[in-house]
Amino acid sequence: MMSSKEHSRQLVVLDVDGGVDDAQAMMLALTQPHVQVLAITCVAGNVHLDQVCQNVLRVLKVFSRLEVPVFAGASLSLLGTHVDAGHYLGQDGMGDVPDPDPPPADLVQSEHAVSALLRLSGEYPGEINLIATGPLTNLALALRMDPDFPARLRKLTLMGGNIYGLGNVTPSAEYNFWCDPEAAHVVLEGYGSLFPITVVPWETCVQDHDISWDTWDDICAIPTERGQFHAAIQQQMISTQKKHRLFSAHFHTFDPYAVAVALCPEILCKTFYVYARVELKGDITRGTMVCDYNDKWGKPPNVQVVKKLHLPSVLTMLCKALE
Amino acid sequence: MMSSKEHSRQLVVLDVDGGVDDAQAMMLALTQPHVQVLAITCVAGNVHLDQVCQNVLRVLKVFSRLEVPVFAGASLSLLGTHVDAGHYLGQDGMGDVPDPDPPPADLVQSEHAVSALLRLSGEYPGEINLIATGPLTNLALALRMDPDFPARLRKLTLMGGNIYGLGNVTPSAEYNFWCDPEAAHVVLEGYGSLFPITVVPWETCVQDHDISWDTWDDICAIPTERGQFHAAIQQQMISTQKKHRLFSAHFHTFDPYAVAVALCPEILCKTFYVYARVELKGDITRGTMVCDYNDKWGKPPNVQVVKKLHLPSVLTMLCKALE
Amino acid sequence: MMSSKEHSRQLVVLDVDGGVDDAQAMMLALTQPHVQVLAITCVAGNVHLDQVCQNVLRVLKVFSRLEVPVFAGASLSLLGTHVDAGHYLGQDGMGDVPDPDPPPADLVQSEHAVSALLRLSGEYPGEINLIATGPLTNLALALRMDPDFPARLRKLTLMGGNIYGLGNVTPSAEYNFWCDPEAAHVVLEGYGSLFPITVVPWETCVQDHDISWDTWDDICAIPTERGQFHAAIQQQMISTQKKHRLFSAHFHTFDPYAVAVALCPEILCKTFYVYARVELKGDITRGTMVCDYNDKWGKPPNVQVVKKLHLPSVLTMLCKALE
Amino acid sequence: MMSSKEHSRQLVVLDVDGGVDDAQAMMLALTQPHVQVLAITCVAGNVHLDQVCQNVLRVLKVFSRLEVPVFAGASLSLLGTHVDAGHYLGQDGMGDVPDPDPPPADLVQSEHAVSALLRLSGEYPGEINLIATGPLTNLALALRMDPDFPARLRKLTLMGGNIYGLGNVTPSAEYNFWCDPEAAHVVLEGYGSLFPITVVPWETCVQDHDISWDTWDDICAIPTERGQFHAAIQQQMISTQKKHRLFSAHFHTFDPYAVAVALCPEILCKTFYVYARVELKGDITRGTMVCDYNDKWGKPPNVQVVKKLHLPSVLTMLCKALE
Repeated sequence: MMSSKEHSRQLVVLDVDGGVDDAQAMMLALTQPHVQVLAITCVAGNVHLDQVCQNVLRVLKVFSRLEVPVFAGASLSLLGTHVDAGHYLGQDGMGDVPDPDPPPADLVQSEHAVSALLRLSGEYPGEINLIATGPLTNLALALRMDPDFPARLRKLTLMGGNIYGLGNVTPSAEYNFWCDPEAAHVVLEGYGSLFPITVVPWETCVQDHDISWDTWDDICAIPTERGQFHAAIQQQMISTQKKHRLFSAHFHTFDPYAVAVALCPEILCKTFYVYARVELKGDITRGTMVCDYNDKWGKPPNVQVVKKLHLPSVLTMLCKALE
Repeated sequence: MMSSKEHSRQLVVLDVDGGVDDAQAMMLALTQPHVQVLAITCVAGNVHLDQVCQNVLRVLKVFSRLEVPVFAGASLSLLGTHVDAGHYLGQDGMGDVPDPDPPPADLVQSEHAVSALLRLSGEYPGEINLIATGPLTNLALALRMDPDFPARLRKLTLMGGNIYGLGNVTPSAEYNFWCDPEAAHVVLEGYGSLFPITVVPWETCVQDHDISWDTWDDICAIPTERGQFHAAIQQQMISTQKKHRLFSAHFHTFDPYAVAVALCPEILCKTFYVYARVELKGDITRGTMVCDYNDKWGKPPNVQVVKKLHLPSVLTMLCKALE
Repeated sequence: MMSSKEHSRQLVVLDVDGGVDDAQAMMLALTQPHVQVLAITCVAGNVHLDQVCQNVLRVLKVFSRLEVPVFAGASLSLLGTHVDAGHYLGQDGMGDVPDPDPPPADLVQSEHAVSALLRLSGEYPGEINLIATGPLTNLALALRMDPDFPARLRKLTLMGGNIYGLGNVTPSAEYNFWCDPEAAHVVLEGYGSLFPITVVPWETCVQDHDISWDTWDDICAIPTERGQFHAAIQQQMISTQKKHRLFSAHFHTFDPYAVAVALCPEILCKTFYVYARVELKGDITRGTMVCDYNDKWGKPPNVQVVKKLHLPSVLTMLCKALE
Repeated sequence: MMSSKEHSRQLVVLDVDGGVDDAQAMMLALTQPHVQVLAITCVAGNVHLDQVCQNVLRVLKVFSRLEVPVFAGASLSLLGTHVDAGHYLGQDGMGDVPDPDPPPADLVQSEHAVSALLRLSGEYPGEINLIATGPLTNLALALRMDPDFPARLRKLTLMGGNIYGLGNVTPSAEYNFWCDPEAAHVVLEGYGSLFPITVVPWETCVQDHDISWDTWDDICAIPTERGQFHAAIQQQMISTQKKHRLFSAHFHTFDPYAVAVALCPEILCKTFYVYARVELKGDITRGTMVCDYNDKWGKPPNVQVVKKLHLPSVLTMLCKALE
């Protein structure tokens, strides 16, 4: 439960898959007051694992936070697959902006991400605010390696899944869940049986949180080094969104919302609790998150779905992060 | 395409599964001006096949239309299953209202419903407005028995399926599609590849077409024999809806919309065209209709989804039918 | 049950998919004493439906039996697919041997194969010995069109399925079952619940019934018109079998065994009764027939599996047919 | 590859699930000359994880080998399920024989089994002969935690899976594979792509390796403490096998064969190499291992299937172990 000291100290671990919006999620987390980012754990997703680690280090460097430890986790899904997000976010997942002075790869810790998650949860029992913005492989492995891991978390927030059967990879599956449906299933069942997982689903991002291009252009014009970096890495994605008028005539982002609601739950405007499962077998629905709105299964809720958040607050958080 | 003579002559065949709202659908079709109901074909669904036939005959009798031929079709799904709708609509599917003078069962034609569909389509090529408000087994069988059958129809309208992954039997499947997912698949693929099928999905009925209880109580107070019959057969369903506040604090109906938009397309307020498929294999999504909103599959639309219709017009049609 | 008059009169209907071994099956049935072939019904399988009909007419012509009525049935599987057997049997399914004087296609009856099956079963209740050597689509449709159809048959024998998970199309599925798994499921459940279906599975043909090339060469050297036709249509298949040493260093055939055991049950050497089901959902096992050897499902047997038959008898039958 | 020093030093890790035949497997491994058992890792299977550990300690104690470190691994399958083997082997998996002086549970190492596997493979690269006789969860997790783990093994031998679609839990799935089909899939793909895994499938044990009851009674009459323990723990299983005449009129065992062929490959009489996959989606075939005998998938072999081994040698090994 949120105490009055909610903001007095926040220990955060981010589990990311190295895309442009993972970078934005990191930017929010790294700059929130009273928040200590204990670790960033990497998982293959938008790009392959090494590139995820490289992208994370790059963001940390731009934000002068290379002291935050970075851990490499799963390079493949539970079943052993990996399909990256293609060229939508750039070959490197962050807009293919050359990095003249990349951080050395050996800054990545030798400890495995899953081991780090288990260890940190033991060092800070009940304190870690875990936020996942990629496929859920690391979280699923952590549970299998230690069934008590979820119980040592403060809470879990993730971006992924869908609530109305709409998808961005297949017609009915969202990318993070589709990448590793088995892991998503394990997390919803294994963590969600202990406490409701806060989920920012795909439809919430693209249907209820339109960002006007004017607003976004203003954010991309912030002239600081951080602002310019933020603007640069998303140029490719923006031009794709503008060209194809993807989703609607507005800009949309995804992963930062998970960080925003995890760290500032007061920005939640509308949420609901429901029991959700992931389809593993479907021919055309594999990876779909199914919400049991009419309680056909008779199971207690395992997710708190974010339906509406206070978008201006998130944009303000982002602007501050870039200044 | 709709000609200016659209209303000059309408040949209709109804394929129904014998529930309360199938009865309403029949009432609309039987009383629309310029509409000739060539046949009513029956399929197991809400209730078993014999009861469907009995219910259809009963409605025809109340409406003094026993000359309309009734045909019995499939008693089981393509794969051989049958699960009725339970007691929601009453054991007999029409509120368990005793019928002191039931029409004799031998009024049902000896010709099989599928044979009748094939024959009628040959006698009236390009003229039949086929409306299906139950599981799609008969339509699937008709296609398999004669691949040219769909091409001899004027159009096909059906109530069934879902567009946002929401269901009324399982969390993600609508009853008519869930009863015979293989048949729904066959119809979407086999008919929809020739012309877009007009589909009234479940969510459209319960999300966008609230009928206030006051309005519905007025309709149920129509003092004619027809009106009293209509009111009687739905008492059980109404009390269930009121007790459980199913779906929302309003009344909802389903099947009559398919007849209304099939016969009076001018009441369509909002529709969209999309390619849709039915999940056959899913563990938790079997029977779900998946719409490819973002054209991931690159297939031409096979359905015209009814999103919004002019509800007052339908209620007026129903009132006239009952007077 | 087999009476002492078993051989006094045998009414047979063959349901075939037009391959070389379907032709052999026809040859056996057309030449057995005391056997009357009431009809040959055609189903898409090895080749498309029109070619199946053409092939059947061609065999009838060579055997001077064009009075046997031929009916066209399903051109697609229950779910609407069709994949032919490729060039293994020749493009035309019968070795691509030119037919200088083909029988006219209009010799095919206008009545649908399924209608003919239903009608004949009414005209000869309890007498028809139905033998199926292709995908089971027609039989599944017949059951759905008339649930009492199986009860009016004398017995049903089919070639198809597997008993040890070995396949010839995929690693675990046999061609006839794989072509229309839903139909195979429907037949095993819907017919097999009334009486055990006699099944000649794929493994029985290739594992337990080796025909030496010497023996087969002798049969192919029978100098009659029928013998030369029989030899000609399988040249292509034989050279493929010899070249690739398919299955083993011997010749194997398939469909004729179903006719042989259906008409002469005394040649059965080893059979067993078991409950069998068809996998419909599997990723790699779709179409596999699963036998419940250890009674895990607790269901009564629905098939009598042919494990061993008296091969010399079949070869003798074939030789006589060709003389 | 096997060197001439094959028997000069054998480092073995056993991964077991605590049943009677796991105990036999341990007995063989613990008593083979020139074999050093580095660790025994436990996985939930026949019984729950704590019971597995307890059973392993008990066997070690009877064999005076409590210095062998025991590690607890996965308590649930990758997807989070666990179904024990029921009362067939006794509630405790080892015949429910009271243990008056059980080894203390704290003899189990605090290190997780998967961590131990990874660590040991680093300490003894290329030397570990890994033998798995339970569900493959630990092995799948080890691969996901470190993709290089399989490459550091000497070889992998396992008991599990099936080669003719015959099962002992469902009609078509073997228990170890059925318990965790995803893990079995991961191991066949992830390990088998590096080197062929030696697999002792279920059918090999029950079809080709009958042990006469006389022979087995002799073994169970060995009067040593070890022999009496061995006899005691299997009394319940034996009486079940005798009563139900399971499989055949002979005794059958399973897990010890994996140890036998792993440590003494010269006893292999007949093996074959094939590419095998596990069905994950099937309705009735989930967990079935499918062998691609006819190379339909065009993939290199990932398993070496044990079809026949020299049974007297294994029985001699067992007798020696018990003396």
